[in-house]
Parts: sequence; C-alpha cells; structure tokens
Amino acid sequence: MSDQRVVRPTPISGFPEWTPQVRAVEQRWLDHIRAGFESFGFASVETPSVENLDVLMAKGETSQEVYTLNRLQADARDDSDAKLGLHFDLTVPFARYVAQHFNELTFPFKRYQMQRVWRGERPQEGRFREFTQCDIDVINVDSVPLHFDAELPRIVHRVLSGLDIPAWTLNVNNRKVLQGFYEGLGIKEPIAVIRAVDKLHKIGDGGVREILQDEGLSAEQVDPCLALARIKGTGSDVVERVRELGVASELLKEGLDELAFVMNDLADLPEGSVVADLSIARGLDYYTGTVYEASFDDDPDYGSICAGGRYENLAGQFIRKRLPGVGISIGLTRIFAKLVAEGKIETGRVCPTDVMVVVPGAERRAEALRTGELLRERGFNTEVFHSTAKVGKQIQYASKKGIPFVWFPPFEEGGEHEVKDMGKGEQGPADPAVWTPRGTVL
Amino acid sequence: MSDQRVVRPTPISGFPEWTPQVRAVEQRWLDHIRAGFESFGFASVETPSVENLDVLMAKGETSQEVYTLNRLQADARDDSDAKLGLHFDLTVPFARYVAQHFNELTFPFKRYQMQRVWRGERPQEGRFREFTQCDIDVINVDSVPLHFDAELPRIVHRVLSGLDIPAWTLNVNNRKVLQGFYEGLGIKEPIAVIRAVDKLHKIGDGGVREILQDEGLSAEQVDPCLALARIKGTGSDVVERVRELGVASELLKEGLDELAFVMNDLADLPEGSVVADLSIARGLDYYTGTVYEASFDDDPDYGSICAGGRYENLAGQFIRKRLPGVGISIGLTRIFAKLVAEGKIETGRVCPTDVMVVVPGAERRAEALRTGELLRERGFNTEVFHSTAKVGKQIQYASKKGIPFVWFPPFEEGGEHEVKDMGKGEQGPADPAVWTPRGTVL
Repeated sequence: MSDQRVVRPTPISGFPEWTPQVRAVEQRWLDHIRAGFESFGFASVETPSVENLDVLMAKGETSQEVYTLNRLQADARDDSDAKLGLHFDLTVPFARYVAQHFNELTFPFKRYQMQRVWRGERPQEGRFREFTQCDIDVINVDSVPLHFDAELPRIVHRVLSGLDIPAWTLNVNNRKVLQGFYEGLGIKEPIAVIRAVDKLHKIGDGGVREILQDEGLSAEQVDPCLALARIKGTGSDVVERVRELGVASELLKEGLDELAFVMNDLADLPEGSVVADLSIARGLDYYTGTVYEASFDDDPDYGSICAGGRYENLAGQFIRKRLPGVGISIGLTRIFAKLVAEGKIETGRVCPTDVMVVVPGAERRAEALRTGELLRERGFNTEVFHSTAKVGKQIQYASKKGIPFVWFPPFEEGGEHEVKDMGKGEQGPADPAVWTPRGTVL
Repeated sequence: MSDQRVVRPTPISGFPEWTPQVRAVEQRWLDHIRAGFESFGFASVETPSVENLDVLMAKGETSQEVYTLNRLQADARDDSDAKLGLHFDLTVPFARYVAQHFNELTFPFKRYQMQRVWRGERPQEGRFREFTQCDIDVINVDSVPLHFDAELPRIVHRVLSGLDIPAWTLNVNNRKVLQGFYEGLGIKEPIAVIRAVDKLHKIGDGGVREILQDEGLSAEQVDPCLALARIKGTGSDVVERVRELGVASELLKEGLDELAFVMNDLADLPEGSVVADLSIARGLDYYTGTVYEASFDDDPDYGSICAGGRYENLAGQFIRKRLPGVGISIGLTRIFAKLVAEGKIETGRVCPTDVMVVVPGAERRAEALRTGELLRERGFNTEVFHSTAKVGKQIQYASKKGIPFVWFPPFEEGGEHEVKDMGKGEQGPADPAVWTPRGTVL
C-alpha cells in the first residue's frame, strides 16, 4: 500500500447520491415519469445546465441562490465563460429556449424537461443544492386553450399514481378568482392579500388576519377573504360556495368559470386526488390564472412536491411576442429523497442481471461467451462469469448478487445446456435459443 | 406588447442544445446505450455534478479546465460551497464513490454512469464545455480478472453497432507490451517513449524519431520502437509479429499473453471492428495494462470517440485499499454533435404522439377525454385536441405535427368510433378498447 496522502471522501451537504440499489429505483421513476409525459404527446427538451447570467437574471431577480462558474486558473485572454451561471429552475431556460428556437417549433408547443437544477441555498429537509425537476409546459402564441389547465393535473395524477409514494393531494385554484374577489371587496392591493393568504397553512387565520389588518383592510374586508380561503372541494359546488359569499366582479366571474371548467374536465379522476382549494395562491407573481400545488397529506409542512400554474407571458424578456403558457413541475428529488430517508424505497437487486452463465473451464470459455451473446440477443441481461473459478464459487457470486438464473453451458462438446432457477432451487435442461423462464421475476 | 428591454438569447459556445426532433434521437441513443450496458449486467450509478476541489485535484493535477462554483451574493457566514467544482470526467467521481460507499458495494463492482461533465476549455470541433459521457468500469479489490478487458470492447461493439454512425474501429493495445518492449531494448524512460509513440498518428514516423533521438535513444533503439508501432492486426498473428522483432522481457511476455487473451476472446466479432494496434498508448499515465481507443475511420483526426484502459489502483487517493479496475468511456456528445453538424441525424416527428383524438364539440368533450384515457391505457401516446375548433383544423394540426393516427369519437351519443390512418389516408370504424394499428409505424 502506498503511503500517499488519502483524501477521505465525505458527502457534500445538499448534493444527494444513492447506492446502486436505490439508484435503480430512481431510474425506474424517471422512466415512468417520462412515459407518462409522452403518453400525452409532450416532446422532450434538454437545455444546457448553464445560462448567461443576464438570461438567468432577466426577471430582475437578484437571487443569491445562483451558482456562477469560474475557472480555477482562468485564461486572462478568454473571458467567454465569465458570465455563466447554473440554472436554478427549468422555466427560465425553457423561456429562453422557446425564444431562441421560435421558428423551429410547432405551436402550441408541448414540452417536458427532466434535468438537474442547482440552488445555493442552505440545505435543509426537502431542500437540496442539486436536484432533479420534472417539468411539463404548454406554450403558445397569443393564447393557450384552457384545455391544458385541466390536462396538466390529469398528467400529474397519472404520473404520481404510478409511483409507490404516500397519499398526496393536488390543489387547484385560480388567481383571477382571488384577485377578482379582492377587487370586488374594494381592496386596492390584491397582490399583498394573495401573498398573505398564501401563508394561511403556516401562520393560521390569526396570522393572516394580522397581516391584512396591517395592510389597512377593514374587518368587513378581512372576514370574506378568510371565508374564501376556507373553501375547498372537489367539484363545481366550490364555485357555488364562492358565489354565496356575495362578492362580484368581472374578473371573479371569469376565474370561477375557468376553475369550473378545469374541475369539470377532471370529474373522472378518483375523488380527493385533485381538489379545488381557494387558499392556494403560489407566491410567485407571474401566475395569472390557474395555479397548482401538491403536497403529502400526512406531511403538508414538508413543502410542495409539485407546483405550477398559468402565466400570461413567459418569454417576454427574450422575444417581442406574447407567449402565454401553463406548466407544472414535479419535485422528483424532494419526493424521492424523503422516501429514501424514511427507508420506504423498496430496493431490489444490486444489478440488472437476469442470467449468469457459468464458465466451466478455460477450454469451454468460447462456448460460454457464445451462450451469453445468445441470451442477450433474446433480451436477457446476461453476465458471463469472469473467471474459471470452481463452479460452486461462481454460483455463490450469482447468489450474492441476487441473480435469478444461473446458466450451465455444456461442460463438454455436444453436451446439454442447463439452467437453474435460483429462487426455486430447480435445475433442468434448456435451449438458449428458445428458453423463456416461466413464473418468474423476468 | 410591453416595452421592457429584451435580452436576445444567443447560443453559448461549447454548450450544445438540440431541437425537439434531434433531442428525440439523442434520447433514443441514450436508451440504447443504457440497455447495452445493462445487457451485460452493469448497474447504474450517478454522482452529484459537483465534487470537493480536493477530490477533483487528488491526482495532483492543476487543471485550468475545472469550473468552480461561486455564489452571486455569497452569504459570508456560510462557506459550505466555497470549495466545490463541477466534475470534468466520471472517473474521479467514480473512484470517490467506490471509496465512500465501499462497504455497501458488491465486488467486482460493475457500474455504468451516463452524465454530463464540464470542462472550461476553448471550444473547438469535437470539444465542448458541457458534454455527456457514457462510462463503464469494473473495479475490484486487489485484482481484476482479464475477462473484463475483453468484455469491455464487446460491450462497446454491441452499443456502437446499434447506432447509425459512420464506420469506426476500436483499437486495443497493452501498456505492458510497450513498456516491456522498451525495457527489453534497454530504454530507461519508457514513459517518455510511450508519450512520443502516442503522437505517431499526428506527427508521423519522422516526428516520433526526432523526439526519441532527443530523448537520447540510439538508432538501434528507435528503429524497433517504430517497427513495433507499425504492427496492427486482428488476431494472435500480431503477437507473433512482435515476437519476430526479437526483443524479450518478462513484462513484454506478460503483456503479449494478455493481449492474445483479449483478442482471442473477441474472435467472434466482425473482422476489423476491434483491432490490436501496437501504436496506441493513451496519454494518461495511470493506465497499466490494456488500453482502448476508438475513432471514425474516415475522420481519425476528429479525436477519439471512445477511450479507456486498465489502471492498477483507481481509488488510492481516497481509501487505503488496492482497487484496480478497467474501464471505457464513450464520448456521446462528441459523436452525436458531429452527426448533427453534418446533417446525418435522421430526425422524425416533432412529438411522440401516436394518436390524436378529435373533440367534435363541447358536449362531446367528456367522451373525447375518456377515449384518450382508454388509448393511453393501451399504450398509445395520445393527445386529445385542445379546443373545439372545426374538425378540419384539428386534422390539420395532427398533420402538421406528423401524428400518424387521428381518432374520431362518436359525434353523437351511441355513435361509432372511427380512426384515420394519416399516412394511408384511410378511415374506418374502430373500437378504442381493442384497436391495434396494422402495418404502421407504431
């Protein structure tokens, strides 16, 4: 052993990493989500991990979360990467992408994007510095049909229902309902109210009431605001209950019609999975219509596992066209990491191998390799054992790795192939050109 | 249209990005490569994009290619990411991973890793600042069977053969052959010779001869070095031709035996795809046995599209154990970007949709949505049209997006479903619960 200094590697806080068994499950999740998105005809897009800082900051944000790139020993004559930063979400890169490739795209443009993003925030439960988001958006020139406001919750439902995760609820609201309702009450700064009500789950009725009073609202205004926020339901009854509060405005009517359309479209989904919740606002200013937010039923404080909404003009910073859209983002790492931490990810085998081929000896090596190729051609993930160790040792290796079948090529010229089902302990003759395992995990 | 300033987005040099049609092909490639790796029983690993700088620099390199991370507005009390850099390959992170998770892994550990890496080098043809590598390595405690030296070219052959790319050759050599041969000639600094010979394809016989003479080699030493470098063949004849040069050493014999074993194991592959080439050395110092390098036959100067080899001790910087390995890396982006630039990527549809369901009118909307769900359950990627526009307009949309089938749910209660094959222009009755397209792209 050399005496060189050893750099003991330690995990970096906020940058999750999985063992191969856990990683295999994550990959299955990613495949499932991708298939779900594609089953609705959305196309895949990936963008570089990096954007120019003026693109990242185009919304006028001064985010201290953005990681900028620097070179360890920068070449003074080359400042071409002096202004690059890692993207902190997939919405800004998508807006930039649509503006840049506008003439190459077919509208309405339905895209999904599953990539890592980076945020230099303090790591804490459910918050990472590097994590994978799964975004799905529709963007169009001038207007986006309401159809998509209802389609996105349907897609999320399809995707999340297929994952083995704790019970969740996707809450839907409409910013026009909130804004129109507050306007109908004569409130001049509806955005301030929206921000306050958005904190309802955290600070309760009393907390929200206090903020609203500080904003100068009268009791006659605060009470209906809180009454609205308490309305929650699965169907068009919700719309009825809002109307019963006796507030009226053009915008409120428009918002209620939209909310009713969305909820009506989703009437076939299992009751309780998608719920109209009039307290949901989403902090971000740019949502203008439908908003979405999902969380775990048993752990709502863990944060949203899925969020999004409708925006009037996504790419206005990058192109002189009106490009409204509606989108939703699934926080894959946030969901997955929680289950990993709680030991709820059911991990399987340490490798994807279906069959391990025994190598009976150096002179039978070519036959074993040929058998491996045959089985691979037939779709089985196949390892040919890596030495001519004693057969017992070879079987032991397969057992340790949880490989379900061990294959014995003929031990002598002209002999018979045999296969052993490691789960059942049964062994018998088999032909690699036609073999199909019966009643097994394959 | 607002008057706000528009940030015109421009591509960032060295950070490739594809249109959805091209991206769809890239995703197919990634799936194919992944399936190829798994068909040999390799397990997936992903590591964070980021490593501590002392891990990235553990080999004592002072690479000016490393991107370090900084925050735009760093929190002075929190320097937890002060020493982070983006990984520049997947080998260093893999070595760190194995050391860190040593007790959780099953050895020999066979893993593949397909991720983006970053290098702050000057962008040029075939060289990017962000690109995807597809790595496959076997690592074991104390020794790695030679079996894997032969298995890796087999895997690469399987993977590359399944991609529609120009002709390529995977060249194989063994560093022990080179080092043993030079030692047998009485050369004291074999590494310097290895480095010189590695440049043969670039600087020719004359150039190499000049360097070797500068290194103090006599003509009697230079001639056999060049003679060795000219040996190239597909089988064990290569070994014979080296022996005919009349140089002998223990290490040379060992290297030739290993090379013969590898080439013999690969005898069933199509001739010319994997070739023993005694001029291949690979610049990196840490290879100690088998080395690999693949390039395009018609454009060898484009650079290697695939490279790797055997190393005696990969993770020695991170753990006090001897962990030799053998690995190979496919330069996915380098290969793919070349074909994109040359217009050789055959792109298909702009979306993954198989079937588009027409919405005959607002009152038939629920029926259309139900039909969409039925078709999705049966595995078809299905869009339900996003408005109640005239049917002709809906069909036009499907045609523009290249969607192969348009589905007509009954236009009135109790009516019949029909489907139109957009390619053939044929239309007829169909039942969404049992429909299977015949003779089509699906």
